[in-house]
Amino acid sequence: MFDELHEECGVFGVYHVAEAASLTYYGLHALQHRGQEGCGIAVSDGRQVKSHKGRGLISEVFSEAPLQRLSGDIAIGHVRYSTAGGNLLENVQPMLSVSHRGTLAMVHNGQIVNATRLRNALEDAGSIFQGTSDSEIILHLIQRQKGSLLEKIRQTALQLEGAFAFLIMSENSIYAVRDRHGLRPLSYAKVQDGYCISSETCTYDVISGRSIVDVQPGEIVKFSDDRVEHFRYAPAERPAMCAMEYIYFSRPDSALDGVNVHLFRKASGALLARKDQGIEADIVIGVPDSSISAASGYAEASGIPYEMGLIKNRYVARTFIQPTQQLRDRGVRMKLSAIRSIVEGKRIILIDDSIVRGTTSRRIVQLLREAGAREIHMRIASPMITYPCFYGVDTSTRQELIAAHKSVQELCDYIHADSLRFLSVEELRSICKGGLCTACFDGQYVTELYDYAEKLNE
Amino acid sequence: MFDELHEECGVFGVYHVAEAASLTYYGLHALQHRGQEGCGIAVSDGRQVKSHKGRGLISEVFSEAPLQRLSGDIAIGHVRYSTAGGNLLENVQPMLSVSHRGTLAMVHNGQIVNATRLRNALEDAGSIFQGTSDSEIILHLIQRQKGSLLEKIRQTALQLEGAFAFLIMSENSIYAVRDRHGLRPLSYAKVQDGYCISSETCTYDVISGRSIVDVQPGEIVKFSDDRVEHFRYAPAERPAMCAMEYIYFSRPDSALDGVNVHLFRKASGALLARKDQGIEADIVIGVPDSSISAASGYAEASGIPYEMGLIKNRYVARTFIQPTQQLRDRGVRMKLSAIRSIVEGKRIILIDDSIVRGTTSRRIVQLLREAGAREIHMRIASPMITYPCFYGVDTSTRQELIAAHKSVQELCDYIHADSLRFLSVEELRSICKGGLCTACFDGQYVTELYDYAEKLNE
Amino acid sequence: MFDELHEECGVFGVYHVAEAASLTYYGLHALQHRGQEGCGIAVSDGRQVKSHKGRGLISEVFSEAPLQRLSGDIAIGHVRYSTAGGNLLENVQPMLSVSHRGTLAMVHNGQIVNATRLRNALEDAGSIFQGTSDSEIILHLIQRQKGSLLEKIRQTALQLEGAFAFLIMSENSIYAVRDRHGLRPLSYAKVQDGYCISSETCTYDVISGRSIVDVQPGEIVKFSDDRVEHFRYAPAERPAMCAMEYIYFSRPDSALDGVNVHLFRKASGALLARKDQGIEADIVIGVPDSSISAASGYAEASGIPYEMGLIKNRYVARTFIQPTQQLRDRGVRMKLSAIRSIVEGKRIILIDDSIVRGTTSRRIVQLLREAGAREIHMRIASPMITYPCFYGVDTSTRQELIAAHKSVQELCDYIHADSLRFLSVEELRSICKGGLCTACFDGQYVTELYDYAEKLNE
Amino acid sequence: MFDELHEECGVFGVYHVAEAASLTYYGLHALQHRGQEGCGIAVSDGRQVKSHKGRGLISEVFSEAPLQRLSGDIAIGHVRYSTAGGNLLENVQPMLSVSHRGTLAMVHNGQIVNATRLRNALEDAGSIFQGTSDSEIILHLIQRQKGSLLEKIRQTALQLEGAFAFLIMSENSIYAVRDRHGLRPLSYAKVQDGYCISSETCTYDVISGRSIVDVQPGEIVKFSDDRVEHFRYAPAERPAMCAMEYIYFSRPDSALDGVNVHLFRKASGALLARKDQGIEADIVIGVPDSSISAASGYAEASGIPYEMGLIKNRYVARTFIQPTQQLRDRGVRMKLSAIRSIVEGKRIILIDDSIVRGTTSRRIVQLLREAGAREIHMRIASPMITYPCFYGVDTSTRQELIAAHKSVQELCDYIHADSLRFLSVEELRSICKGGLCTACFDGQYVTELYDYAEKLNE
Repeated sequence: MFDELHEECGVFGVYHVAEAASLTYYGLHALQHRGQEGCGIAVSDGRQVKSHKGRGLISEVFSEAPLQRLSGDIAIGHVRYSTAGGNLLENVQPMLSVSHRGTLAMVHNGQIVNATRLRNALEDAGSIFQGTSDSEIILHLIQRQKGSLLEKIRQTALQLEGAFAFLIMSENSIYAVRDRHGLRPLSYAKVQDGYCISSETCTYDVISGRSIVDVQPGEIVKFSDDRVEHFRYAPAERPAMCAMEYIYFSRPDSALDGVNVHLFRKASGALLARKDQGIEADIVIGVPDSSISAASGYAEASGIPYEMGLIKNRYVARTFIQPTQQLRDRGVRMKLSAIRSIVEGKRIILIDDSIVRGTTSRRIVQLLREAGAREIHMRIASPMITYPCFYGVDTSTRQELIAAHKSVQELCDYIHADSLRFLSVEELRSICKGGLCTACFDGQYVTELYDYAEKLNE
Repeated sequence: MFDELHEECGVFGVYHVAEAASLTYYGLHALQHRGQEGCGIAVSDGRQVKSHKGRGLISEVFSEAPLQRLSGDIAIGHVRYSTAGGNLLENVQPMLSVSHRGTLAMVHNGQIVNATRLRNALEDAGSIFQGTSDSEIILHLIQRQKGSLLEKIRQTALQLEGAFAFLIMSENSIYAVRDRHGLRPLSYAKVQDGYCISSETCTYDVISGRSIVDVQPGEIVKFSDDRVEHFRYAPAERPAMCAMEYIYFSRPDSALDGVNVHLFRKASGALLARKDQGIEADIVIGVPDSSISAASGYAEASGIPYEMGLIKNRYVARTFIQPTQQLRDRGVRMKLSAIRSIVEGKRIILIDDSIVRGTTSRRIVQLLREAGAREIHMRIASPMITYPCFYGVDTSTRQELIAAHKSVQELCDYIHADSLRFLSVEELRSICKGGLCTACFDGQYVTELYDYAEKLNE
Repeated sequence: MFDELHEECGVFGVYHVAEAASLTYYGLHALQHRGQEGCGIAVSDGRQVKSHKGRGLISEVFSEAPLQRLSGDIAIGHVRYSTAGGNLLENVQPMLSVSHRGTLAMVHNGQIVNATRLRNALEDAGSIFQGTSDSEIILHLIQRQKGSLLEKIRQTALQLEGAFAFLIMSENSIYAVRDRHGLRPLSYAKVQDGYCISSETCTYDVISGRSIVDVQPGEIVKFSDDRVEHFRYAPAERPAMCAMEYIYFSRPDSALDGVNVHLFRKASGALLARKDQGIEADIVIGVPDSSISAASGYAEASGIPYEMGLIKNRYVARTFIQPTQQLRDRGVRMKLSAIRSIVEGKRIILIDDSIVRGTTSRRIVQLLREAGAREIHMRIASPMITYPCFYGVDTSTRQELIAAHKSVQELCDYIHADSLRFLSVEELRSICKGGLCTACFDGQYVTELYDYAEKLNE
Repeated sequence: MFDELHEECGVFGVYHVAEAASLTYYGLHALQHRGQEGCGIAVSDGRQVKSHKGRGLISEVFSEAPLQRLSGDIAIGHVRYSTAGGNLLENVQPMLSVSHRGTLAMVHNGQIVNATRLRNALEDAGSIFQGTSDSEIILHLIQRQKGSLLEKIRQTALQLEGAFAFLIMSENSIYAVRDRHGLRPLSYAKVQDGYCISSETCTYDVISGRSIVDVQPGEIVKFSDDRVEHFRYAPAERPAMCAMEYIYFSRPDSALDGVNVHLFRKASGALLARKDQGIEADIVIGVPDSSISAASGYAEASGIPYEMGLIKNRYVARTFIQPTQQLRDRGVRMKLSAIRSIVEGKRIILIDDSIVRGTTSRRIVQLLREAGAREIHMRIASPMITYPCFYGVDTSTRQELIAAHKSVQELCDYIHADSLRFLSVEELRSICKGGLCTACFDGQYVTELYDYAEKLNE
């Protein structure tokens, strides 16, 4: 399903650890899968906040020189996937607010659903915005509140609706804030004598983080004076972690709200296998990289051997090198190849994590058929995506979601598979003890939609 | 073993196919694993040869503009790994020879062992060299021969000793040449109404190539006037394909001299399992990406379940971002992570393809132990590397080859594994019906070493 | 005196003329001498405002691609010299304010002396600033006013103290505003069927502008609906155009408030000659480029022949190429050379426009002596600079102004001239019928100094 | 006449002076007017030769890092203007020849008229050329000679026909070579305890060079072992310095074969004035920069006052920013402006150095008329250019030389001047005691033309 859904961001922070910017570089590198179009780091040495950001991968934006300039022991960073029309440098984070009362830096993952009305009101009251992202609203709201910084953040969080997991850094503190439903993941861990905060726990392995704690939905966690304090800014509502975080976005070595992603996926594959009892097949193949876990879960549960029938090119080819339609049609082949000697003459269980527009699935089936596959039984480790997401995933409109317009059989015909099955929403929920947001499968949005209500039927 | 051995090149060519440069872009992209430090394409429209090259990945060096400029239906291209001190733009290929008698372009994979004496003689006779690579000698030799281009290439090939697989392109033809032992792979396939030539067959899948033919050791294959002609410039000697091509360099979806790389690796894993009968272990883990095939072969043969216990970051972090030794020590973690929920408490069979300096193996073992592994039994899908390679692999000196100085037990202690086993040279040879060059394991070099004889004991 | 004083900006605008961005490129190119460290253009097609900006010369920041993207018939642009510490991209203009009520773009030349207190008040009221320049205040003030855009600009202008000449562009109009004393120049002209607005009139020659009108001190000129309207936002106060605009900054082919710069300078040279009656000298030499006019005025009035004894290298060498103090000392030689065959054995009247730190004068005298000059009589076409400027010229502190600490004779000794004379403030005023700001010569600042009062004695 | 004729190169060298690369940077910066499209420096520390080169100005190609890498006390450098089609990086100099017998670097100014036949013969003998410039031949010829380096250079120089002034640097010596007619200038001077060699003497002022000696036509000057030795490789023929070096190319502060360029130009202006006795005019104006000297010579001789009626923008605008013909027609205005207050109502003597295609002259006349000039009497400080140059000046074909096809009166009409006069070849020769090459005026080429004979009538 790669290339079809995009997570919009990853956040990372470090409090009271030497070489904070370098650690943040490592952390963001481990979060690079959450956004490749821009990134940045802000750092504080206790007195002054400095930042560096740009468009591109973390390894493209940061060389030795900017990292050395960013001295200090407090830092926050961000990787960004920019939605259509939004690839402005002004939207790249961290965003800064510099005033005679001090400097604040902010990084944010999520989507504020009442952004337009908040922004209009702020503009009418005299605020000037630089970019087009909803994240900028958070800094403006904070600037206009009264009281301590904690109090300002609390007042701000109460006005925000939707999905958010953001960090605010001052000269000597970091605040981590998560929305009332916990739609986006956020946790922290001990590292050396300080702390690090991250969208995903896989970063902690890289920098030897330990004693992981999840920021709870509706919480503000404050890191200052070498202490951690938890504050609740709103009563917790039904927990609803984005299901796609488990299914597709997060790295298999991350745990979200205590549940390991790889094990979640293996369980989803096992559930698919249970529904297929008696199926006759020779091998199980997963679409790399995100469906390997589910495929191995299916193989284990079914007893059908797992095989590496598809391999992925590790090198990314820029998509602009596609001069003609004829060559563009070959696009998918640059990323995936089928291994003929494995696939030829075989009856294949093909596991993918999800189907968005269906074009990728169709191409992979064709690729396997050209390599000699005899039968292809496609199994999707998630339910049918039939509603757009307004909580930070770029699924554009219902129009483009193929499952919103086709039955399973029509879809099976479209992708030329011999059979096709999805997980049900109930099966999905059964895997994870915590609550899930399944709005993209069943339209049960966990908040009012405000600005986006009218987009629902586009 | 990644990061320790480097292949020096990949070559690709296209004859009489529309948009030859774009196809070559696709082909080189599929060969990118064979060299990431430089690349280039030369193209001919039948009258004029144009070229573009630079340092970096194919996606960095080529944007739309240069590709559009490279119009024509004949093309050759190159990806390059540059050895120490040789990262000059002058060494990036294709190399061109422009004269009033016409233009020749050349791409080369391999290493000429009598390069220094050939070069000195050419310089004494008045030739001027631009770079430091041995490839440049080939063009100079051709320029000084008499007769047809075929005859010149034949005379040149006869003077070259060592490993070579090179392509020569004139305004309207391509010649593919392979050394007498076939140390480096080279084959061609039909594509559309023309042909493509490649170091590895994986490229043919990308561009719908079919009817694959290997260039035989000691052969010149000439593509001109819409025909293919095979010429033998020297009697074939003992075939000796580089064993490391199967073990590490080539992509699993390639077949070299008719043997699929993935199946070769699975067989090597199965051989390791056969030697381990009765071993007690919970899971088999392969070091991604190159050892996954061998690990699944081991798992299948042993019945011990294969698990994805290590995952690799898909994004490449520049290594210059390592300000301190402390952070440098964390280097390997940026590329590999262990999944704790899989690894914890387990007795692990850890499969890697080879050991060069040993530092990477040592770090992976440490990584798994930190993630809670109970036992780690390391199995290497190749023999001990005890001699340097002079045929195109960058292994520098014996000094740096850890297996040249330690027994298996000492090595096991060094990497902190619970047990360690290698394949024997005989087992390795048993996998592949064609001949293998195993010089790096047993010192049986297939040619005289000329310039390099004295390097053997460094 | 080059390299010692820096103008901070030039502004340019075009209203209702096809290819507005290209014309603005030409206009800014003609204003490039007013600032070389950053530049930008914003353009409107009547519905949408687009902009492009960057650090460097106009020819470096703009290539064909960005200019083509900037389609529309209304545009404003800016060239910027950034003072120490202020070379942030955030400070490069045009600055934009994007809101649901429409987009405003702004370019500004000058310096707001009550900037700090205005900014602090705005921040306390919830505004967030992006950069450190005082120009940003203007947009924030406008955003917070009520009524029509004209009314908002009027209210804003009334709150600003100091030197300013700024342009505000909306989707379909431009407003040109000049401070009450007219410290910075601003005028407009007809071009094709529309208008252009500029810091200097030299731009009109480049784009065939005609019928030049000066924006009066205290005026807002509104360009909209194909009309020009003049509004007075404040009663005119004593006109006080910056004297250094005539003496040094502006191009000789510009006229400021109706007075041609070249003629002003010639007159200043003639006044110097009148004071030197009876002086014995062989040739008059002007320091290129800014002192050529004054030197020819001196030559004409004195009858002593003008000679081209110094020539300037047209190519700019980056100053960072100065590895050692020894080479750094040669710095000035890279820009100026003396022509020995003219200078040798001569008694020279050397005309320069002004003296700031004195180091350049000292070097030029040395240069001429080494080329064989017999006597050097230095004449400065302005009074002694003894006070810092707070109206947009970068003279830093009194500390650095050599004339604030030395008598004429001490200064003459310091630069090793045979004699030295300055113009008096009265002589300077006698040249120009309009009023001049001579604060840098006599400390008579035309406004209260607010934030800068304490800097006066640094 | 700027923008119409292009010199092809400038060379510079330093022998036994600390920081040789930095001094060469300064020297090339002073020679930048001789070529702006590419440049490079090679340096030797006595054992190893290193080089850096690129396309663009010296300030663009060299930053601090490459200069620091170029350590050593011997260096040569080059600035290059590339003729049409030849803007290849391969053509940028210094060119290097690296062999086991040592490294040679070469820089060359001029044009070899028998280049094609020399190159063809070398290719037939097995040499491979990298670029398309004739300079590369020199290195190949040297490589094929026998004996000492001095002997090889002597044998090479004897085979070259045409215009050349080149430097050859080995690890510990520099050889300076000038053609038999001295068509291109070359001299050397003492600097510190060593020497510098340069196309023009203006460089010596920048780096405190003294005791200037011209390399004589037909000479090789060898710098080695702290000594200078002069060798004659061929009997001197009629000295024939390119007249355009005095008229247009060289800087006014240079002396060529002992004659100062500024004084040469003043004399040419005075000769023009003598032919105009009795002419009625108000002011004399020179086209900046190259015609200022001639204009001041005219003014002095005629008694008509010199005025600065045209000024030149110091900043170079890239020519690609010219989206429409309408804007392109304004091109010249970006570089030159007329000062209306000087020009208006005046009868003007307009001095330019030469006329090539006539388009620039036509535009300048138009510019002055638009600024209100009453009469424009154009005087050209050189004869009519009626033949192409094959000695290093880019005049392309006779077709494009307007004076080859029009009488003086037709030309006067074409440029819309009130009158027009040229210098005669005899007048030109009368200025300079040494011989001049006047081939572009009278077709008297000083050598056989070989490869170019047929181009004469194109």
